[in-house]
Amino acid sequence: MVNYEVRVPTYKASAVSPSERERILARPIQDTQNIRKIVEPIIDDVKARGEKALIECAAKFEKAELKSAVMKAPFNESLMKVDPRIREDIDIAYNNIYAFHSAQLRPNISVETMRGVVCQRMSRPIERVGLYIPGGTAVLPSTALMLGVPAKVAGCPHIVISTPVRKDGTVAPEIVYIAHKLGAEQIILAGGAQAVAAMAYGLPGIPKVNKIFGPGNQFVTAAKMHVQNDYGALVAIDLPAGPSEVLVIVDESCNAESVALDLLSQAEHGLDSQIVLIAVALTDEQFDQVEAAINHHALRLSRSSIIQHAIKKSVIIRTDSTDEAFEWSNLYGPEHLVLHLKNASSYLPKINNAGSVFVGPWSPVSMGDYASGTNHTLPTYGYASSYSGVNTDSFLKYITTQELTEEGIQRLGPSVIRLAELEGLTAHADAVRVRGVKL
Amino acid sequence: MVNYEVRVPTYKASAVSPSERERILARPIQDTQNIRKIVEPIIDDVKARGEKALIECAAKFEKAELKSAVMKAPFNESLMKVDPRIREDIDIAYNNIYAFHSAQLRPNISVETMRGVVCQRMSRPIERVGLYIPGGTAVLPSTALMLGVPAKVAGCPHIVISTPVRKDGTVAPEIVYIAHKLGAEQIILAGGAQAVAAMAYGLPGIPKVNKIFGPGNQFVTAAKMHVQNDYGALVAIDLPAGPSEVLVIVDESCNAESVALDLLSQAEHGLDSQIVLIAVALTDEQFDQVEAAINHHALRLSRSSIIQHAIKKSVIIRTDSTDEAFEWSNLYGPEHLVLHLKNASSYLPKINNAGSVFVGPWSPVSMGDYASGTNHTLPTYGYASSYSGVNTDSFLKYITTQELTEEGIQRLGPSVIRLAELEGLTAHADAVRVRGVKL
Ligand SMILES: [Zn+2]
Ligand SMILES: [Zn+2]
Repeated sequence: MVNYEVRVPTYKASAVSPSERERILARPIQDTQNIRKIVEPIIDDVKARGEKALIECAAKFEKAELKSAVMKAPFNESLMKVDPRIREDIDIAYNNIYAFHSAQLRPNISVETMRGVVCQRMSRPIERVGLYIPGGTAVLPSTALMLGVPAKVAGCPHIVISTPVRKDGTVAPEIVYIAHKLGAEQIILAGGAQAVAAMAYGLPGIPKVNKIFGPGNQFVTAAKMHVQNDYGALVAIDLPAGPSEVLVIVDESCNAESVALDLLSQAEHGLDSQIVLIAVALTDEQFDQVEAAINHHALRLSRSSIIQHAIKKSVIIRTDSTDEAFEWSNLYGPEHLVLHLKNASSYLPKINNAGSVFVGPWSPVSMGDYASGTNHTLPTYGYASSYSGVNTDSFLKYITTQELTEEGIQRLGPSVIRLAELEGLTAHADAVRVRGVKL
Repeated sequence: MVNYEVRVPTYKASAVSPSERERILARPIQDTQNIRKIVEPIIDDVKARGEKALIECAAKFEKAELKSAVMKAPFNESLMKVDPRIREDIDIAYNNIYAFHSAQLRPNISVETMRGVVCQRMSRPIERVGLYIPGGTAVLPSTALMLGVPAKVAGCPHIVISTPVRKDGTVAPEIVYIAHKLGAEQIILAGGAQAVAAMAYGLPGIPKVNKIFGPGNQFVTAAKMHVQNDYGALVAIDLPAGPSEVLVIVDESCNAESVALDLLSQAEHGLDSQIVLIAVALTDEQFDQVEAAINHHALRLSRSSIIQHAIKKSVIIRTDSTDEAFEWSNLYGPEHLVLHLKNASSYLPKINNAGSVFVGPWSPVSMGDYASGTNHTLPTYGYASSYSGVNTDSFLKYITTQELTEEGIQRLGPSVIRLAELEGLTAHADAVRVRGVKL
């Protein structure tokens, strides 16, 4: 065995008991209690003092001096000076995301469930949506696209964006450009829990939003979870968020260099990134090629220290069969699932729990992160077992209707009278009787 | 003005300022703080002691002595002895709900967003769902249908039901019959927060569920909101729940008796029910007929004392136009919206916020509560501004996929490389480069 500097702990599936399997795949425990204690006073402060609190937060957290914590549309051209090539790249990504999310729109439904009983369903955009775009060291225009484009597709009439400023008090021009493209009405210059609070409770001149979207650090997540449980805020959130993660399944057809970079591009997201590799029936020689490529690139890449930290907590499982591999994968329920398998698409029916799947050798996660058209706001931490990623429906709500004819209520009414009386609800029964229905 | 014993406070819309309007439509504040303090120790106890805790809760809250807190399928025939006519009514409701919720299923989506870039979406049922069926004084088979049928339509392989027992330790045979029809695997004999905890964390032999559904009192709701924020539970919930409510819009075409019973059938749900009537351009004589009918039936009905209590906090708004009426209605965002209007269905485009709409003179809420086919688990408390009612999608999740060809990554890859580098994510860029893409 070669003595690589960067090496991922490796298990043979056949030697692992079910309970060990759960332990190996366990995510790090989230310390929500302590985060909550930090977040709640910030929320209360923004609720009480509005923009003043935001300006103080910007000074404290971003070291930025702001006069106002809100930028209102129309945004000045000078704030969105973007390299023309990047502008084009953003436009391409925008169009692909738009195309895929448009295909998710549905016509209204109408069903005559019985003669004279017509049930329908119509959709309505959520009126006010708040999009959180993380900032900090990196510019994250991709998140603005992933949240904003489906909001446009859904037809949400009021979009507000919140993002932390840079040290000089500005917002990256790419984000302003996208905000402009989306027709966003305001950019709130705030990050963290304070951004969530501003969107949930509103600011003078900016009504509270109905739903808050967007990834973020533990503070953002804790704040989102806090406001979704506050009847006073009356606000929904997209989904709970944990650290980003990938699970890659490979067989002997895989290209070791591609596999290594797919794993490491997940690792570079942050110290808490989760990475799982499942190697199906690789020879020791093939497996060594993968390990060598991981080692080589982990040392070479610009975010090497983050990567080396994240990769240490990663895990490789060597299995004998693809069936076993998908068992592990469904148990883990990865945010991103990459298939470096021969006839990769033939395995899609085996997938039960995952956020987004990257099929075959030409589909690195990077493509979906930015531009293929799928959404990159996906369930993490195992929540793929019950949540979908952000999609067009996330920005819509469905209203059902029913219209009965006199014949319809005569047919169905007697059953309703009996069931209502069984439940002891006599006014419900009488509301049918008063329309001329007799038992 | 006749001096009715039961009379609802009435406002003229033209005399009400916008801020007064908000006050008039305000829901009662939910005292979540104190409820939470009661609920959390119960949750912890069930987590720690499992079935033992449930048996103690049944003794304490339902005054029932249980040997076991779980009924396992197949359920004994003797437990589901249902009047054959009621069985037929349940079957009719089942079929209508099944038909409408089947129409909500969607085919997979496939879009070639660019040449060589194919994005798809496939749905998967949520593996384990927990359905909470309230009990107490009334039998509520309708809720078992409203939650269970969409789960069946979605194809959820494991259904567990939780419901409080009656004093004699049994469950209503109608509920057992429906559980059997649904293929539910267990009935957990518990109500309140203890039921939610048992489903969220599991019991010996009953794995935790992935999502919890169902209405309930404040304790059930507080418990659902608690577990949805616990990463350790890793469980989703259907939607936040407040008191049930109706908003009825009437014009001169309305039948006063029908209107009164539609209002009062909402009032009989509970002391905290919310009722709003919007009367459009009624003459004083027409309006008096509605008031007289409310008074008459409120005094007569079997749940008169509950009704009189609820109706006292209700409100009537008299407007001059339907436009005004729908403005009020959208601001309120009612769970149930009833239209006693001429050409009622022509007003559907005006509705933005509502759970379910009851269109025209032959469509009392009772029909949707039980059997028309729509779901009766709907957003309350104003959450209709961001949530849909329970529907087939509530039991599914969507997984996206992308598969690029070599041509596809060559076309789209350069944009991804540039955007990744703009975000400082060089491994993301290199994962594209390693596949042969050059700038
Ligand atoms: Zn990524
Ligand atoms: Zn009802």
